[in-house]
Amino acid sequence: MPVNLLPPDPAALQVIEGVELGFAEAGIRKAGRRDLMLVRLAPGSRVAGVFTRNSFAAAPVQVCREHLGLGGGIRAMIVNAGNANCGTGAQGLADARRSCDLVAAAIGCTSAEVLPFSTGVILEPLPMAKIEAALPGCMASLGAAHWAQAASAIMTTDTVPKGASTSLALDGVQVKITGIAKGVGMLQPDMATMLAYLATDAAIASPVLQSLVRRVADRSFNRVTVDGDTSTNDSFVLIATGRASMAPIASDADPRLPVLEAGLVDVAARLAQAIARDGEGATKFITIGVRGAANEGEALSVARRIGNSPLVKTAFFASDPNLGRLLMAIGNAGVDRLDTSRVQLRLGEVTVIENGGRASSYREEDGARVMKADEITLDIDLGRGTASTTVWTCDLSYDYVKINAEYRT
Amino acid sequence: MPVNLLPPDPAALQVIEGVELGFAEAGIRKAGRRDLMLVRLAPGSRVAGVFTRNSFAAAPVQVCREHLGLGGGIRAMIVNAGNANCGTGAQGLADARRSCDLVAAAIGCTSAEVLPFSTGVILEPLPMAKIEAALPGCMASLGAAHWAQAASAIMTTDTVPKGASTSLALDGVQVKITGIAKGVGMLQPDMATMLAYLATDAAIASPVLQSLVRRVADRSFNRVTVDGDTSTNDSFVLIATGRASMAPIASDADPRLPVLEAGLVDVAARLAQAIARDGEGATKFITIGVRGAANEGEALSVARRIGNSPLVKTAFFASDPNLGRLLMAIGNAGVDRLDTSRVQLRLGEVTVIENGGRASSYREEDGARVMKADEITLDIDLGRGTASTTVWTCDLSYDYVKINAEYRT
Repeated sequence: MPVNLLPPDPAALQVIEGVELGFAEAGIRKAGRRDLMLVRLAPGSRVAGVFTRNSFAAAPVQVCREHLGLGGGIRAMIVNAGNANCGTGAQGLADARRSCDLVAAAIGCTSAEVLPFSTGVILEPLPMAKIEAALPGCMASLGAAHWAQAASAIMTTDTVPKGASTSLALDGVQVKITGIAKGVGMLQPDMATMLAYLATDAAIASPVLQSLVRRVADRSFNRVTVDGDTSTNDSFVLIATGRASMAPIASDADPRLPVLEAGLVDVAARLAQAIARDGEGATKFITIGVRGAANEGEALSVARRIGNSPLVKTAFFASDPNLGRLLMAIGNAGVDRLDTSRVQLRLGEVTVIENGGRASSYREEDGARVMKADEITLDIDLGRGTASTTVWTCDLSYDYVKINAEYRT
Repeated sequence: MPVNLLPPDPAALQVIEGVELGFAEAGIRKAGRRDLMLVRLAPGSRVAGVFTRNSFAAAPVQVCREHLGLGGGIRAMIVNAGNANCGTGAQGLADARRSCDLVAAAIGCTSAEVLPFSTGVILEPLPMAKIEAALPGCMASLGAAHWAQAASAIMTTDTVPKGASTSLALDGVQVKITGIAKGVGMLQPDMATMLAYLATDAAIASPVLQSLVRRVADRSFNRVTVDGDTSTNDSFVLIATGRASMAPIASDADPRLPVLEAGLVDVAARLAQAIARDGEGATKFITIGVRGAANEGEALSVARRIGNSPLVKTAFFASDPNLGRLLMAIGNAGVDRLDTSRVQLRLGEVTVIENGGRASSYREEDGARVMKADEITLDIDLGRGTASTTVWTCDLSYDYVKINAEYRT
C-alpha cells in the first residue's frame, strides 16, 4: 500500500503544448490493462535522456542511445510495460528497431526520430505482434490531456500512477512542466531512473538540455532507492517542445536556467518521492539526510547504505527503534578513515547518536514514538565537511517478499 | 529453518589439547539460555585474528586488536551473546577491559592475555553485573570436550549450533583441527566473519599464523553472505596450541603448511556454509560460482551482487525461474567494460544464458525443475579471464522479515 500517495488529479497535470499521449491494451503480460503508451512530439522539440549504467542495458536503451546520439530531432516515443526486452540478443534489438519503424510509419517520420522503451520481465522475447496490433489504438487515442492515462499505461508493480506538474515564469513568460514516472522495485536508479518522462514547453537548446537532464536526475531520481537493484531499463527523458513564446535558453549562463531547473527538479523530485512512497510493499516513507560529508559521493554512499540495508528496512517496518543497525550501516559505507566519534544521528527530532555512541539523553520511548509514524526523517552528520545529500526510500515488509516471489505468477 | 543442517555430533568435535571451554547462563538478553562462553588456552598457544572492517568496530574488537597487537601470548577468550557492546563509547571500552580483568583474575594471567568478544544488539550498554555473576559458572564448567556446548552459548538468531572438525597428518604427525562459529544475519563478512574460533594442536609460529588466518578467512567466511550487512563485531580467531609433537611451522615455505592450510580451510568452509544454511529465514542454500573473471575481485563483486540482490533472493524463495534478475545483478556488479555477449550462466545443469542472452536451448520447465530444489548451484562465466570464486548464500523469505522485524521483542 502506498504511503500517503494518491493518484494525480488528471486536471492538475497540465497540457504541454507540442506533446500528445495515446494508450492501449496490448495484452503483453496480462489481459485487461493498459500496457502500451505512445507520445507524439511536435516538430522542433528537443529531447535528452539519461539511461541505466547496468552492463546489460536493454535493447530499447541501446536504441535510444543510438537515436539520441545522431543529434537529429525526436518526434515520438513508444513505451511498453510487461516485458523489458532485455537479454534478448539480436532478436531483441531487431524488435526494438521494428517498434520504431512501426511508429515512424504511423506518425510520418523516420525511425531514427522514434525512441523505444520497455519495462517488465527480463530475458523473454518481446511479443511484437501484440504491440503492432495495439498501435492503432494508441494513435487513435492521442491527446494533449492524456498524461494521467499515459502514467497508468506504463505501470508494472506500481499500485498508483505517478504524475506531477508545475508552472513558472521565465522573464515574464509562463512556462509549464509536466512529468510521469513508473517503477517501484528493482529500483536504485544510477545516473537515470526507471521510466520517467518530463516535458516542458520551454525552449532549450540541445547542449543545455543534455547537461540539464543529468543535473535534474542527480537531484531527483538518482536519490531514490527501494531495493538497491539498478534496473536494466532505467530511462529518464526530458522533452522541451519550445512552444512557449520565448527565446531559447542556449547557454548554461542564461539567468532563466536556474529558475527553470528548480521547477524541473521540483516536479522530478515529487515523482521520485512518489516512487519511494509506492515502493514494493512499502508501509513507511523514509527521508535520509546526510550532511557534514567530505564530498557528495560519500554522503550518497552513507545514505544509500542505510536505505538499502535489509536490517534497517525491516526495523522500520516493525516500528522497532533498533537503531544500532543505523550505526552498523553508516560504518559499512566505506567512508575512508571515518572518525566515528564525530558522528551524530537524529531520528525525527530525537538525538540518538552523539559523538559516535548512544546519546546520553536518548530514551527508548522517544525512539519508539518516532518509529511509529509512517513518515520518518533521519538526519546524519558525519562531522567531516560541508557536503550533503538526501535519499528517499521505504521499508522492507512481508509484502515486498510476496510481490517479488509472485511477480510472474 | 536451516537447509540440510544438523547440530554437530559432540563426539565428532575433537578435543584440541591445550583448549578448554566453559559456558553459563548470564541472562544478558533472554533468560534460560547459555549466552556466555569462556575459552582457556594452555601457555605457549599462538593466536591470530581478523576483524570487521566496519568503521564502528565494537569495543571488544578494539580491545582484541590492541591485545593481539602487543604480541604477547593469549591465555583466555570471553564471549557473550545478546549484546554487541558497540556504539557504547568510553563506557563500552571500559566494560570490555573490565571483562578481561575479571577473566584474568579467575584464570591467573594478565588482562592483556585475554581477548573479549560480544555479539547481539548494538547501542545498548553491556550488563557487566550479569557477566561478572556468571563467570564462576564458566570457570566451573571448563572442559576440553565442551566444543558443542560452547557453540550453542555463542548463538543469537542461529537455530543450530555450528561446529566442524578434522584431523590430518603432517610428516607423519597426527594434528587435529576443531572450530565453532555463529552468525546468520547482519552477515557479509569482510576480511573476517561473525564470531568464529578455530583451534589446532599444530605448532605454528606467530608470523605464519597471522598470514594464515587471513588466507583461511578469504577462502571461507569471506565467501558467505546472508544480507550484505557487515557486522560491527565480526571476529575470526585461529588458535595453535602447539601441543602436537612437531617442530613449529616457522616459515611460509614449510612444506607442511599447505597440508595444514587445506585442513583449516576445510573446517572453516564447512562452518561458513553452515552459516548460510542457517541464514535468517533460509529455505534454500545457494552456491554461486563465478569464473572467467579478469581478477578475483571482480568475480567476488559479481557473486556478491547476485547473493545480495533482494530480487534474486525472493525469486529463489518462490522457486520461480525469473532468471532475468540474475542478468540484472551481473550487470550491476560494476565490472569495467563487461562484454555482455560473452557471458554464460548455468543454473544447475541447465544453460540459461549464452552469449549474453537467453540460451536457445533454454526451456522454462528445466529452470523450474532446478529452482524447486533446496540446494541450487549457479555457474557464471564472464569470458574475460581465468580468475574465479565461490560464494555461499541463502534465499530471502517471509521469515527473514519476521525474524528481523521482531528481533528485539
